[in-house]
Amino acid sequence: MKWGVFDSGVGGLTVVHALKELLPDDPLDYLGDTARVPYGIRSVETVRRYAREAAEFLAGRGADGLIVACNTASALALDVFCDLFPGPVLGVVEPGVQEALAATASGRVGVIGTPATIRSDAYGRRLRELRPGIEVHSAACPLFVPLAEEGWTDGEIPALVAERYLAPLRAHGIDALVLGCTHYPLLAATIARTMGAGVSLVDSAAAVARAAAAHEGKPLAPAGRGALRDGGLLRPGRDRIFVTDPGGSFRGVADRFLGAPLPEPEVAVLGPHA
Amino acid sequence: MKWGVFDSGVGGLTVVHALKELLPDDPLDYLGDTARVPYGIRSVETVRRYAREAAEFLAGRGADGLIVACNTASALALDVFCDLFPGPVLGVVEPGVQEALAATASGRVGVIGTPATIRSDAYGRRLRELRPGIEVHSAACPLFVPLAEEGWTDGEIPALVAERYLAPLRAHGIDALVLGCTHYPLLAATIARTMGAGVSLVDSAAAVARAAAAHEGKPLAPAGRGALRDGGLLRPGRDRIFVTDPGGSFRGVADRFLGAPLPEPEVAVLGPHA
Repeated sequence: MKWGVFDSGVGGLTVVHALKELLPDDPLDYLGDTARVPYGIRSVETVRRYAREAAEFLAGRGADGLIVACNTASALALDVFCDLFPGPVLGVVEPGVQEALAATASGRVGVIGTPATIRSDAYGRRLRELRPGIEVHSAACPLFVPLAEEGWTDGEIPALVAERYLAPLRAHGIDALVLGCTHYPLLAATIARTMGAGVSLVDSAAAVARAAAAHEGKPLAPAGRGALRDGGLLRPGRDRIFVTDPGGSFRGVADRFLGAPLPEPEVAVLGPHA
Repeated sequence: MKWGVFDSGVGGLTVVHALKELLPDDPLDYLGDTARVPYGIRSVETVRRYAREAAEFLAGRGADGLIVACNTASALALDVFCDLFPGPVLGVVEPGVQEALAATASGRVGVIGTPATIRSDAYGRRLRELRPGIEVHSAACPLFVPLAEEGWTDGEIPALVAERYLAPLRAHGIDALVLGCTHYPLLAATIARTMGAGVSLVDSAAAVARAAAAHEGKPLAPAGRGALRDGGLLRPGRDRIFVTDPGGSFRGVADRFLGAPLPEPEVAVLGPHA
């Protein structure tokens, strides 16, 4: 089936990578709202307005299913996508929650994400709903996004930033940590080192790709960021990349997020004045 | 006279602070495009489109003069503001360039800013135009913005980040460094320590405030971030703060940028779908 993948910017390309590992032959349309990224610093109302325009765009292009790769949009506006998109809609919160519940033995789970995702408490609410009594500790980590985009994913600076954000979560004795932002998988090694060996990282990008494969009845092979079989990930023509701002910083970092060369992005116009 | 002050977000409040030190009785309208901040990662076309809508909004509110506090908008779209705003328009580039020329003895000047400002080379072009043969070295410092917004302005992390960005400029032997982003004055102490005693920092926020005072024929007392006489900086009613996204992260950081408590922001609607 043809998937529409929505993200506020470039981060959703980590979902595309995971999706293509599991469903390499499914065509996809990717929409990155690069003219208005990042969503994680905006209000609920603004995110919902942007979500409406994105849902209409991807529905109009005839995707069969929709993946909301953006954690902020999943947390604040999944119902908007469900209302406006005719097919199945997968957000990143539910698959991340499911994998966190499977991963935790202690019942103490951590969640990290953008300020808006953390303020929304979308992961925490769902975790407590499915397992009453679970302990959820969360932290917003705004510096992680520019670190990932700069490619400063290893070394002293990311280690110190991670220590500052994550030490309180470590002190709570969590044994599973949800990476509730599509940028964070690029910092997974540093985050894992900071948290220590006893903490499982739950990559919400990989989790939603597994949920999409499950939706199609495909086997749930673990998705990761390994090399793909043929080196080519997206096929021009079959797979299309749309952005609301064709210039800016997107091109410079997209290949790193996708883990492969990117086809030329096309310009999406959302609403009269997106 | 009544000033309109435009910024992509919260950073322009450093300009408001400097302006109110020099022109405490002038009323002002501040517009922060918080629904679409940051401009520094976007393309020229997108910044110019956003600038058009901002210029029309502030012109419609009857300001006498306009200060474009956003370095990215000043670098990429000052002509848009000049075309659409009936009164005088001051960008941050020209005052910053003038003060850098006054500050340098060696003729080697550094410029730091967002990726878009640095790519535009607006400071470099103007510096070379006014002083042919000047040596300009520049660097984009994307991590500085979230560091300022997190309030991580002192200590090991900002020092390491500053060292990574600024060491190449130091190696070029510059003796003046333009802070070409309104967020950077919050990191001035760290930047100054990193560059060493022989390098003058040129604060483009303070520079444009001095240019505004000069425009009114007021004495050019040095603007800084010192305490204001009466503790009150903006007066509700006389001074108005407009934002395109009233929620999100703006309120949490605005007081720190202004250096004083902020009146309740009002919502500005730019274009039909800002």
